[in-house]
Amino acid sequence: MHYRDQVRAIFDKAPFITDLGLVLSDLGPGWCESVLTVAPKHLQQDGFVHAGVQATMADHTAGGAAGTLVGSNEMVLTAEFKINLLRPALGDRLRCRATVTLAPVEKGK
Amino acid sequence: MHYRDQVRAIFDKAPFITDLGLVLSDLGPGWCESVLTVAPKHLQQDGFVHAGVQATMADHTAGGAAGTLVGSNEMVLTAEFKINLLRPALGDRLRCRATVTLAPVEKGK
Amino acid sequence: MHYRDQVRAIFDKAPFITDLGLVLSDLGPGWCESVLTVAPKHLQQDGFVHAGVQATMADHTAGGAAGTLVGSNEMVLTAEFKINLLRPALGDRLRCRATVTLAPVEKGK
Amino acid sequence: MHYRDQVRAIFDKAPFITDLGLVLSDLGPGWCESVLTVAPKHLQQDGFVHAGVQATMADHTAGGAAGTLVGSNEMVLTAEFKINLLRPALGDRLRCRATVTLAPVEKGK
Repeated sequence: MHYRDQVRAIFDKAPFITDLGLVLSDLGPGWCESVLTVAPKHLQQDGFVHAGVQATMADHTAGGAAGTLVGSNEMVLTAEFKINLLRPALGDRLRCRATVTLAPVEKGK
Repeated sequence: MHYRDQVRAIFDKAPFITDLGLVLSDLGPGWCESVLTVAPKHLQQDGFVHAGVQATMADHTAGGAAGTLVGSNEMVLTAEFKINLLRPALGDRLRCRATVTLAPVEKGK
Repeated sequence: MHYRDQVRAIFDKAPFITDLGLVLSDLGPGWCESVLTVAPKHLQQDGFVHAGVQATMADHTAGGAAGTLVGSNEMVLTAEFKINLLRPALGDRLRCRATVTLAPVEKGK
Repeated sequence: MHYRDQVRAIFDKAPFITDLGLVLSDLGPGWCESVLTVAPKHLQQDGFVHAGVQATMADHTAGGAAGTLVGSNEMVLTAEFKINLLRPALGDRLRCRATVTLAPVEKGK
């Protein structure tokens, strides 16, 4: 299976992601982008987008980026992540771009 | 307002939290516990609970724990967090317990 | 080689650790403790112990703790770490205790 | 005092930094670079540069970058950091470049 289809499947078949409304917007070898149309259900009590929404976007999109570099018989698993929330998330749409910093053996095809 | 009511409000009035189904189960000065009844919508493509669900639980419950120690005219804001996913999240219910490690000036009342 | 000797070697044979003055004080299966007698060379410009000293202690002692659970033909490698500096480091001696949270397959012997 | 002199002082007056041999090489508003000539004392037991050396470089140089944006009556304090060790550190010289991602109010002058 082509890596594009593999990564699309990660977005289309993950119930938490489809329920959240996170959509794969573009991808290439070693990178992936997603967008989220912000809805009331994404907010926390103060009207900003919940940190958990941003963490989910970051984690899943990073997984998509890594997924472009693994073979069709391999899978990507998040072992840990760190997130810094530099500004309140406001607006109608959030965009996330994830880039692979280090790929031990590049296998994207 | 009593700190218990303040923290309850953080759980009851955050749309992302009520939509997720995360429920405050117990709290005290400097700590907070929440539970989540796992539903299909919480899963990722491999059938495990999505890391974003766990990150949301951890972040929000930590915010609840911190919320027990701030004054009624103060609020808690997550600036950053790190999560290590040590085992796949399986089962019918997830439980999260957050404890404040350092409170510069304890003001819970 | 017994795991105690393996971990002792990690402390005795690492030039940066002996130069720093970090000493293994105790260890057991899944844990390790070290101590540092604070000297002027450990300080930063404000008179507190440098964060890099604390990070080195934490990293190396955690490696020692992990080293108690690996086989004699295996080695421990730090892939990443996060440190929170909760209070200024003051005093004559610093003590660090590291505990393994998750060991996939326990092999200490 | 000019911010360049302030940051130079952070490098020149921190005993752990001068003992380590970390040298400020260049700086500008919001960024700072340092270099370290690798010596035997920087190594760990396997011959690679110790993670604590790299963490110290990253922390101190990041502090230098932040120091270019604070007023002469302000100081920079590390509250936490995360480091990912992507490759073994080898070679004769290490170079570290730190850039400020977010400055709430830019005051460099």
